[in-house]
Amino acid sequence: MMHIILGDSELELIPREIQGHPAIVKYAKKRGKKPSQILLDATYHHQAIRSKYGKDAERRGRPDIVHFFLMNVQESILNATGKMRVYVHTRNNEVLRIKPETRIPKSYVRFVGLMENLFHNGVVPNSENPLITIEKMSLKELATSMGTKVIVLSKKGRRANLKNIPIPEDVTIVIGGFPHGDFLSNLDFADDIVSISESMLMAWVVAYEIIAEYERRYLF
Amino acid sequence: MMHIILGDSELELIPREIQGHPAIVKYAKKRGKKPSQILLDATYHHQAIRSKYGKDAERRGRPDIVHFFLMNVQESILNATGKMRVYVHTRNNEVLRIKPETRIPKSYVRFVGLMENLFHNGVVPNSENPLITIEKMSLKELATSMGTKVIVLSKKGRRANLKNIPIPEDVTIVIGGFPHGDFLSNLDFADDIVSISESMLMAWVVAYEIIAEYERRYLF
Repeated sequence: MMHIILGDSELELIPREIQGHPAIVKYAKKRGKKPSQILLDATYHHQAIRSKYGKDAERRGRPDIVHFFLMNVQESILNATGKMRVYVHTRNNEVLRIKPETRIPKSYVRFVGLMENLFHNGVVPNSENPLITIEKMSLKELATSMGTKVIVLSKKGRRANLKNIPIPEDVTIVIGGFPHGDFLSNLDFADDIVSISESMLMAWVVAYEIIAEYERRYLF
Repeated sequence: MMHIILGDSELELIPREIQGHPAIVKYAKKRGKKPSQILLDATYHHQAIRSKYGKDAERRGRPDIVHFFLMNVQESILNATGKMRVYVHTRNNEVLRIKPETRIPKSYVRFVGLMENLFHNGVVPNSENPLITIEKMSLKELATSMGTKVIVLSKKGRRANLKNIPIPEDVTIVIGGFPHGDFLSNLDFADDIVSISESMLMAWVVAYEIIAEYERRYLF
């Protein structure tokens, strides 16, 4: 089984301290929702984000990264065989667990609506059919809970060829869910921290690279 | 060099015959554009599509598939090395050529705007800097123009393990850019037609699987 975690992802509702920003108030009115019910999104809220978050402004509000990640991992050949479990950990230490059979909406607008429902209700589509759940949990608690070797893929790790990384069949992989910079979480739980490329890679590309490698060792 | 083509993709402006549909007129007004300038999108235009296209209705208007495909291929490790060229062929026999250094907008709304500009101007961002161009051309003309072996990946092909498919270093790969059904184009130009999985796969997943395979043979 491969457990794959998108760590420190920039998925959150609009935080209290910018809910009163004029651009946010206007956007919320247009959507017919309260600011506190709306997912933070750099595409629409960049001005408000920049007004408050200094050097963090360039990374916050990136549900699109989570969406692309889920589109790749949930639709992978590996997931279809049932040998993968998928988790999204957020900057606020929440953990989403996504059941293997979950079909993520391809429409970004619908995906955003789904995440807003998830933050509001703690589960989607509902508690009788909990395809995605959310709970408070740190990256360390999640990554160590599987009882497997934990490999973090990070630009700051030791440089290694994907072909040569030791990957046991039972393994937990952590990928950064942010556009720039470094993990916010302490990575002291990692058994190995590996950089797989000279170039800066997107989270969803790293995810499919490691899935493809795992498939070639244990599936094909 | 790997040439990768998304074939018969469902990328088009709103066709003349449904431009007068009330739901389209309303949508165009909201966007402040003429229907003829707007990308057909099943998420927003499903009602109008169903009113006219019978059994084709379930496949038309899928810029999201093109977006996910480009997000994977343009951001791949292979593309960063300059050993890949990317093309999108549409149901109306148009061909988009995407330069390797092109960064596709991650925001779906911005991607749609970019494609609308491309259909309108024939090039984006502009003719001094033609990162993406569009021209009339059939899938056969495009696929045979490289002078390489052409491999089509299709559910209807011979079933083969990805590890065992003969892939020369100079190769053209064709992947279907539609959600269901079969290629509209005749595939008589194909040297090989291969199915890589028992399960139904999304176009962007097939794309990264073949890229990962090629990287392991010629790059890593």
